Amino acid sequence: MFSKETYMQRRALLKKTIGSGVLLFLGNDEYGLNYEDNAFRFRQDSTFLYFFGLSFAGLSAIIDIDEDKEIIFGDELSIDYIVWMGTQPTLKEKSAGVGIADTRPSAAIMSYLHQAVQRGQSVHYLPPYRAEHKLKLMDWLGVPSTRQEGSVPFIRAIVAQRSNKSEEEIAEIEKACDITADMHITAMKILRPGMRECEVAAAMEAVAKSAGGDLSFPTIATINGQTLHNHYYGNVVKPGDLFLIDAGAETEMGYAGDMSSTIPADKKFTPRQRAVYEIQNAMHLESVKALRPGIPYMDVYELSARVMVEGMKELGLMKGNAEDAVHEGAHALFYPHGLGHMMGLDVHDMENLGEVWVGYNGQPKSTQFGRKSQRLAIPLEPGFVHTVEPGIYFIPELIDLWRSEKKFTDFVNYDKVEEYRHFGGIRNEEDYLITETGSRRLGKKIPLTPDEVEALR
Amino acid sequence: MFSKETYMQRRALLKKTIGSGVLLFLGNDEYGLNYEDNAFRFRQDSTFLYFFGLSFAGLSAIIDIDEDKEIIFGDELSIDYIVWMGTQPTLKEKSAGVGIADTRPSAAIMSYLHQAVQRGQSVHYLPPYRAEHKLKLMDWLGVPSTRQEGSVPFIRAIVAQRSNKSEEEIAEIEKACDITADMHITAMKILRPGMRECEVAAAMEAVAKSAGGDLSFPTIATINGQTLHNHYYGNVVKPGDLFLIDAGAETEMGYAGDMSSTIPADKKFTPRQRAVYEIQNAMHLESVKALRPGIPYMDVYELSARVMVEGMKELGLMKGNAEDAVHEGAHALFYPHGLGHMMGLDVHDMENLGEVWVGYNGQPKSTQFGRKSQRLAIPLEPGFVHTVEPGIYFIPELIDLWRSEKKFTDFVNYDKVEEYRHFGGIRNEEDYLITETGSRRLGKKIPLTPDEVEALR
Repeated sequence: MFSKETYMQRRALLKKTIGSGVLLFLGNDEYGLNYEDNAFRFRQDSTFLYFFGLSFAGLSAIIDIDEDKEIIFGDELSIDYIVWMGTQPTLKEKSAGVGIADTRPSAAIMSYLHQAVQRGQSVHYLPPYRAEHKLKLMDWLGVPSTRQEGSVPFIRAIVAQRSNKSEEEIAEIEKACDITADMHITAMKILRPGMRECEVAAAMEAVAKSAGGDLSFPTIATINGQTLHNHYYGNVVKPGDLFLIDAGAETEMGYAGDMSSTIPADKKFTPRQRAVYEIQNAMHLESVKALRPGIPYMDVYELSARVMVEGMKELGLMKGNAEDAVHEGAHALFYPHGLGHMMGLDVHDMENLGEVWVGYNGQPKSTQFGRKSQRLAIPLEPGFVHTVEPGIYFIPELIDLWRSEKKFTDFVNYDKVEEYRHFGGIRNEEDYLITETGSRRLGKKIPLTPDEVEALR
Repeated sequence: MFSKETYMQRRALLKKTIGSGVLLFLGNDEYGLNYEDNAFRFRQDSTFLYFFGLSFAGLSAIIDIDEDKEIIFGDELSIDYIVWMGTQPTLKEKSAGVGIADTRPSAAIMSYLHQAVQRGQSVHYLPPYRAEHKLKLMDWLGVPSTRQEGSVPFIRAIVAQRSNKSEEEIAEIEKACDITADMHITAMKILRPGMRECEVAAAMEAVAKSAGGDLSFPTIATINGQTLHNHYYGNVVKPGDLFLIDAGAETEMGYAGDMSSTIPADKKFTPRQRAVYEIQNAMHLESVKALRPGIPYMDVYELSARVMVEGMKELGLMKGNAEDAVHEGAHALFYPHGLGHMMGLDVHDMENLGEVWVGYNGQPKSTQFGRKSQRLAIPLEPGFVHTVEPGIYFIPELIDLWRSEKKFTDFVNYDKVEEYRHFGGIRNEEDYLITETGSRRLGKKIPLTPDEVEALR
């Protein structure tokens, strides 16, 4: 946890920004895998963590700006709980550690909210992302689960605060990035043909857990890198395969790292693998070079896409004017996702508050395939932390669909593409902090160029 | 997955047992850690797995006994889904693999249920253990979340079927037990003073994940074994510590293993540790000897408790008549949990259906501290799979509480107990199948006696 003052200052700023009303913060509960007491690992809601620091199940909090109150709702421990779960500071003691003196039993929150509504106060809450939140909002505020959109002023104030990382947050994120880099370096060292994907995933997860934290998201570790969010680990690695990893660590405080790498199953890339990798590497390096305060991240995305089209033209896979191809969305056949996203207490930071608020400042997102997956479009600011993760993929189902629809035949050489049908996918990813003058990579360096990767094999 | 016939036979038996009405099976959904798309690993509901075999999110099923229909509700894949998550068989194809031809879109289930209610059919559902289930039962059947007790005939029929494991299930459970044993043996080999608990936990989890499955429950790996469900891994192991592990693997098909072991941080136990360990070991061995069809598992629990009291008397920690001590519940100061529980698709098998149905045949449970934690009381039957896991603990908070209440002063020598205040805890656990004539241990043997443990150190 940070110091008491950090949490007090964060809450003070939030109150000042919003000005009036009651702010409701729903902490997360335990959640049963297959029965209630066999719970997934507990993960506190990130906004609750940001403003209240306490990572325990069963808490809620209210900031009543009008009445100048800050209250944590939760229940003290029973002896049964202590026997099963160990002794702990009381809720009162824990809350004091984040600068809150007013704690009340869980059951008291409903009447507090009812009285606030009766007094005519606005109750601000965030859009729910768990069914348990929906049930609480129904019970406590009488809002049906289909109408729980959340408060835009509350969302915007939080996004404004959480987007700009403090020095102590950056240090925490850098810790997560260091562990994340170790996960990738471990995989690069152990991967051999004949291993099952799950063995590589297990070894990486052990690095994250040995460091005292956990994963920031489910590991991707696959010979089918063309499947973007592949969580299947049952394949055996064969000679000639490309192995794609997207994995990150979460620190004990909840901050995330997120990196990707692509490794040849053999000691060296094949000439064809290297040729596509070099294009992806150019996309990555050109994007990093462009990072600076003020540049819209959508522009960097467009740049990375143009670099890809130019490279694919050299391989004979694409043709025509690169700028036009990107404008019309033809690049997305090979590059169907975005260049990166904010990162902090969430690996896609604040995604639960809505990408349109986090990455678009409230402006509507493009609906174009590929471009719509760019999660961050706004001008970069000092203090932003985000990923850089261009990729190139050959997705058989997508190739067949577009070809059958005769889509972008001015830009795509489908006959040539057919030769790469079983290529797989390549992605590399690093994490960057925007500084006053440019950017800084966070965490240890992982191998990025084909030569650097081969040197570790 | 088992063969189509297995699932068809299971459903046929269930229909025959219940006789009439509509049976509603809620599959599980993905669940967001900190935002919707950052999901915990997907775990299908075990009853859904047992009768329908499909381990995918977003499914529900209905068996309409009166209309002789078996229907799986779910949605087919979009191209966006295939790009992100990979190509898959269609729902129609998957369902055919478990003997179901009738698949319908998710949205169709609500009207099906409404029509059933209008026709006067009883709709049977199970008690919900996830908020997502509660929301569905509210939406689909209009039952408030506080009144969703579930159907007793449905529960009883499922418990009757799932309690008796088939040969193919036993083979799957034995796989889980073998992996579980490897997890413990790994820990016994690597544990050294100076390691953090999380390093041991990480190494064990890597064994489970390398085998292609996952954990069957959150690992306990702690120098504070007296905390029964300790999920904190931040301590550094010191010379002289006792290290308690309770951990198990889940196979890809969802079957669980569950074992415990207690290891000295040093190469050998201290004389005091060995003396208490020998008592725990006697509890374990006497319990195993007693396993046979027809013996109520509550009797075996009582036996293990009496063996403990006799041993504790020899150490001067307890006094008086052992049978009386156990009857009154004095043993629970040191042995506050049960001897074991059913195991199968859940590590506490069917716990979501209610322990009173799974372990007590509908009879009320004891409310006595300690005895109330015995999850399985009924006579054992061939085909039952359950754990044997007696334990001895010195829990400072509980000792202080009982001493201050002058509880069981006829049976407990509190002055002597004080000398063991920082002892920690010991538990060992194996998994057993009840056979026609007795019992059989499932999975590889893990070290059980003090000598066996020391041999691996």
